[in-house]
Amino acid sequence: MKIQATNAAVWVKRDEVQTVKKGLIMPTGAQVKPHEGIILSVGNLVQDKDIKKGVGKKCLWHPTVGMEIEYEEEIYLVLRDIDILGVL
Amino acid sequence: MKIQATNAAVWVKRDEVQTVKKGLIMPTGAQVKPHEGIILSVGNLVQDKDIKKGVGKKCLWHPTVGMEIEYEEEIYLVLRDIDILGVL
Amino acid sequence: MKIQATNAAVWVKRDEVQTVKKGLIMPTGAQVKPHEGIILSVGNLVQDKDIKKGVGKKCLWHPTVGMEIEYEEEIYLVLRDIDILGVL
Amino acid sequence: MKIQATNAAVWVKRDEVQTVKKGLIMPTGAQVKPHEGIILSVGNLVQDKDIKKGVGKKCLWHPTVGMEIEYEEEIYLVLRDIDILGVL
Amino acid sequence: MKIQATNAAVWVKRDEVQTVKKGLIMPTGAQVKPHEGIILSVGNLVQDKDIKKGVGKKCLWHPTVGMEIEYEEEIYLVLRDIDILGVL
Amino acid sequence: MKIQATNAAVWVKRDEVQTVKKGLIMPTGAQVKPHEGIILSVGNLVQDKDIKKGVGKKCLWHPTVGMEIEYEEEIYLVLRDIDILGVL
Amino acid sequence: MKIQATNAAVWVKRDEVQTVKKGLIMPTGAQVKPHEGIILSVGNLVQDKDIKKGVGKKCLWHPTVGMEIEYEEEIYLVLRDIDILGVL
Repeated sequence: MKIQATNAAVWVKRDEVQTVKKGLIMPTGAQVKPHEGIILSVGNLVQDKDIKKGVGKKCLWHPTVGMEIEYEEEIYLVLRDIDILGVL
Repeated sequence: MKIQATNAAVWVKRDEVQTVKKGLIMPTGAQVKPHEGIILSVGNLVQDKDIKKGVGKKCLWHPTVGMEIEYEEEIYLVLRDIDILGVL
Repeated sequence: MKIQATNAAVWVKRDEVQTVKKGLIMPTGAQVKPHEGIILSVGNLVQDKDIKKGVGKKCLWHPTVGMEIEYEEEIYLVLRDIDILGVL
Repeated sequence: MKIQATNAAVWVKRDEVQTVKKGLIMPTGAQVKPHEGIILSVGNLVQDKDIKKGVGKKCLWHPTVGMEIEYEEEIYLVLRDIDILGVL
Repeated sequence: MKIQATNAAVWVKRDEVQTVKKGLIMPTGAQVKPHEGIILSVGNLVQDKDIKKGVGKKCLWHPTVGMEIEYEEEIYLVLRDIDILGVL
Repeated sequence: MKIQATNAAVWVKRDEVQTVKKGLIMPTGAQVKPHEGIILSVGNLVQDKDIKKGVGKKCLWHPTVGMEIEYEEEIYLVLRDIDILGVL
Repeated sequence: MKIQATNAAVWVKRDEVQTVKKGLIMPTGAQVKPHEGIILSVGNLVQDKDIKKGVGKKCLWHPTVGMEIEYEEEIYLVLRDIDILGVL
């Protein structure tokens, strides 16, 4: 990604919506946007050391937070550092 | 657990709901989710030294707080450090 | 007590409800829960030095604060350090 | 007083309600509780140096603040340090 | 004044209400309490150095702030330091 | 100006209301008070170094902030430092 | 630009509204103001090092923030530093 996150922002590529669960095709209304994804860029005011060195790693976040930003036809999710609950 | 908690988050495995109390089987409506469990992972911004070294220990928390997160078919409880009231 | 208080929490054993006042047995409706008790455990982020060294001492607190926590059939009161007004 | 104030609390003995003003006996409805009194104990997190060394001195406070606490048949007023406006 | 201001309080003697403006006697309803006066005492937690050394000087404050305190038949105005806008 | 600003206050002389725009005389209802003016005095708790050394310079501020203070028949605008957006 | 941003303000020249998308002329109602632009001036209390050295670079911000300021017939957007999400 060409964008450098600023302040305490973390740019994330969200995982695809799961359309299949346990072999069954889920109806559209039962699909929820996953709160998991890959860290793309970390602002230089982020404090947590596991997030700071987390570019390329998977992370999980509060299901109700984050803001979708479109840039050059691509959708990104921008989180505050403190909304990230864990990394893998 | 594969997940590393971040910031001031504490990941916990909640104790099982008690279905028996003093030898009597409790009806479903009288069962409450326990606010006790085992600490699985501690974010590196947690300040309390007893929680920091508490992975594997039992802890108690405010009955009304915490967020359940599902990851790979497993349910976890994610707490903020300050919502933990004590460790054993 | 087996529990170690965490953060700025203070675990207290509340004094018994007074059922007698000046030799008269008080009716149940006139009984108020006392806001006095014995300090059992002090979290390591408590700042006041008189509370820190107060385990076993009596303390007084704001009448409207504190949370009752049940653990192994016993009722405890958990306070934040700043809700304690004085020690004896 | 046997009680040691904690945190930023200041324990005060409030002055008596004035029942006489300029030689006239005031009717009960015209009496207001004075916001002046004698400092009894000062918590160790109080910051103002004039309050810290003010035990036994008179102080004035915001007329609308303070909490009355009864201990062993005696009524005390507990203030936060910042509610005290001046000492004499 | 015998009172020593505490914390960030500033005790002020407010200027007299102006009853004359440009030679005309103002009707009572058109009189406003001035927000200018003389600094009498400054608490030891006041931060502004011009206020700290301002006892005896004139100051101006936000027209809507301040609390009148009566002590020994005299009316004073007590301000927080940050409500003072300038000194002369 | 005789007044020394205190705390984080900035005293400003607001520019005159523009009554002419592009050669046309504006009707009174279309005139807006400008949010530009000259810095007169800067309190000693102001943090921005460009404002600190800005006495006599032009500044711009949030259009909705500031308080007008009359002193000796003259109208001043008093701003908090953080409401100033830029200097020239 | 002649203006020096102050405090944590960032002055930005917003990109032009896009009137064409994928070769189609968009109707006026479907046009949204872009939340991208070029950094013109950075206040000296801005903390993020990528923004500090970002004058002349493109930045993205929260779509719902910022204040338009007119100065000498030109429209600028003034942001707080923390509303900037990334730079390119």
